[in-house]
Amino acid sequence: MHQLEDEPHGDDTAGNGLLSRRHWLQLGAGTAAAAVMTPLLAQESIDQEPWRSGSGAPPSVYGDRPSMASLQREQISVHPMGRQAGASSTPLQLLNGTITPNGLHFERHHSGIPEIDPVSHKLTVHGLVARPLTFDYDALLRYPMQSRVLFLECSGNSYRNTLAGALDETAGGLHGLISSAEWTGVPLHFLLDEAGVDASAQWVIAEGADAAGMNRSVPLSLALNDAMIALYQNGEPLRRSQGFPMRLLVPGCEGNLSVKWLRSLKLLDQPAQTREETSKYTDLTLDGKAAQFSLRMQAKSVITSPSGKMRLGRQGVYEISGLAWSGNGSIRRVEVSADGGRSWAEAMLQSEPGPMRAVRFRIPWRWQGQPAVLQSRAVDSAGNVQPTRASALANVAPGFSYHFNGIQSWQVNANGSVRNVYA
Amino acid sequence: MHQLEDEPHGDDTAGNGLLSRRHWLQLGAGTAAAAVMTPLLAQESIDQEPWRSGSGAPPSVYGDRPSMASLQREQISVHPMGRQAGASSTPLQLLNGTITPNGLHFERHHSGIPEIDPVSHKLTVHGLVARPLTFDYDALLRYPMQSRVLFLECSGNSYRNTLAGALDETAGGLHGLISSAEWTGVPLHFLLDEAGVDASAQWVIAEGADAAGMNRSVPLSLALNDAMIALYQNGEPLRRSQGFPMRLLVPGCEGNLSVKWLRSLKLLDQPAQTREETSKYTDLTLDGKAAQFSLRMQAKSVITSPSGKMRLGRQGVYEISGLAWSGNGSIRRVEVSADGGRSWAEAMLQSEPGPMRAVRFRIPWRWQGQPAVLQSRAVDSAGNVQPTRASALANVAPGFSYHFNGIQSWQVNANGSVRNVYA
Repeated sequence: MHQLEDEPHGDDTAGNGLLSRRHWLQLGAGTAAAAVMTPLLAQESIDQEPWRSGSGAPPSVYGDRPSMASLQREQISVHPMGRQAGASSTPLQLLNGTITPNGLHFERHHSGIPEIDPVSHKLTVHGLVARPLTFDYDALLRYPMQSRVLFLECSGNSYRNTLAGALDETAGGLHGLISSAEWTGVPLHFLLDEAGVDASAQWVIAEGADAAGMNRSVPLSLALNDAMIALYQNGEPLRRSQGFPMRLLVPGCEGNLSVKWLRSLKLLDQPAQTREETSKYTDLTLDGKAAQFSLRMQAKSVITSPSGKMRLGRQGVYEISGLAWSGNGSIRRVEVSADGGRSWAEAMLQSEPGPMRAVRFRIPWRWQGQPAVLQSRAVDSAGNVQPTRASALANVAPGFSYHFNGIQSWQVNANGSVRNVYA
Repeated sequence: MHQLEDEPHGDDTAGNGLLSRRHWLQLGAGTAAAAVMTPLLAQESIDQEPWRSGSGAPPSVYGDRPSMASLQREQISVHPMGRQAGASSTPLQLLNGTITPNGLHFERHHSGIPEIDPVSHKLTVHGLVARPLTFDYDALLRYPMQSRVLFLECSGNSYRNTLAGALDETAGGLHGLISSAEWTGVPLHFLLDEAGVDASAQWVIAEGADAAGMNRSVPLSLALNDAMIALYQNGEPLRRSQGFPMRLLVPGCEGNLSVKWLRSLKLLDQPAQTREETSKYTDLTLDGKAAQFSLRMQAKSVITSPSGKMRLGRQGVYEISGLAWSGNGSIRRVEVSADGGRSWAEAMLQSEPGPMRAVRFRIPWRWQGQPAVLQSRAVDSAGNVQPTRASALANVAPGFSYHFNGIQSWQVNANGSVRNVYA
């Protein structure tokens, strides 16, 4: 293994080892050049052992299990009064790309996962409409559909980083209440238009068929312009844990709005002021006032590799990568720092930065055993810049932690261990 | 339920009930208009029963099972001499959108699914190179990666429609050896450039670590320009059935080239003429000659809803939808016929028609109990038009069935049943 400290440092783009993409591209500039360069991460002898495997298992009807035993959701938390109320997080540090497989999409349930019969389930549209209507699953399957890759983030995501002490946790353990999928469903305006929305209607109250009757108020403009009744996730019918047979999906907004097991849409001239928008999901500030309906999730990013609890086993070049997203639109750019925010380099965006979807960012980094603090900072299409942790918390009342989007800092120690810090 | 035969037919775009997208959009033109129109697929009373569910199951570490027992791969075929050699198909008719969940991606194994230890597994790059190299999994994880949504299609997909009689099968049973995923991995040129490709090299022989030692010859230009070593599928590390820990991925080419459990890449000045490119995966024509290396999969589409073995339960408007793809680039347009190819209407493309990725097409159709033959026809960015079944088979020797891309015909009978026919 050749160490990369032997290489020239002329292609650094920011402090403490951040490299330009050219670092790799120059090495791969052509076969003539490549023939005389030093191998990077490969070994220079070839393994001649015929260690080929014996014959293996036959095809199966649904998947095989994931290839790594460690590949599972984490931070499963349940309510002390009943295991049905709880959450589980996507293990962001084990994933790459932008899609979250359905089996690893985060979960947040208020009364557990109900088993709903798709034949008897019905969705009603009523309230301030010309004509109340009921739609069954079979009818919805015949409406025009759309497919969109979207992020979904719980309003309480990242709250662990609002606590006084920095927890030694993974990227998923701290920020895993965000996931992404290709959602397919019926644009909501088809149903609302068919029912005939009254001119006085301003809000749509969405209610689920779980025992909690989880309900939220959605502004009519969002419901008409961007929401859908999702029936498929990453190609297949929704999992029960994601709202089978149907859920509301309000792109870019706190996950709580995307009501699962959707049974009722009631149009009103004002919000319903439900439990989930009065005692919960509000932002209490230091002046004692609480902001309601902070619906759009703000510009945010997190480096998922390296991640807390990981150890860099060898010195040399690493690709730093992570996810960035914003409920205000698309991600314009992501900057990365290896020196705790003193200098920044622009990362490459590796997937289409479409509206309301998470993008993967990547940048090469040379680690030669030096201590480092890695950070990422998202800038969205509306010009919003992800704030530092201190700035994000400056006006927040103690103990309130919704909508937190402060910058994550990973400290890399001389022995290669990576840890969550407040920097 | 109001029947749609009551509606005017002024927005038909092709024969036998094909409607323009305006059909839906006009209905949803505004709340004033909507208030006076007839409901489409909804019921006009609302269900007042408080049939809400009791509290349900808590969060889980990996997925929950799919919500429908029928959601599984089909057409599992295994070799009579050993169950390890076989295939299973994606149930296209149960899915929507474009992503195939990992648990439903098609499988094709030549010696079963090996269990490979990612710590001891190595990939060697050798042959006509300046310096043979070995890469382990840990090293590859540190290289620059890319994420691309790509289709993967088995060369033998759709061969059942080359048989003399039309089988009564579903879309997946006939065409389910195509799937799509967001693949993430290392562009192959990084590894080849590092090894230093000799000027005399023209082919890369890729070999798997399965007991079959499955191997194929890949033209060097494809290997340098478009191939990757895939490490992640839809976000998570590859499943064992998809090549864990690493597979070759050659976008747009027959799936057999994307060698799973990749262990060796050997550069040669000619193809290796392996079993899989001499006795198999060749195209024998009526003149007794066989074409080798028909690597790029051709322009193709299939209507997945309605599908064979389905029954239209109610008259009225349906959304016809399906998938289209081409290994020559992207899909330019998809046309749909409801009268067996006499008239065609252009369908809406519902996902980004990027290179080497499958797109979802959609078009509304009014079914009033009349017999119909539904077809779709893809046109790719290179101008190739998907041929009729007869035309696609015109020059093919009996019994040879690779690379078949003839148009699929679904016959809808007066009782609503849908069946595969040759039309």
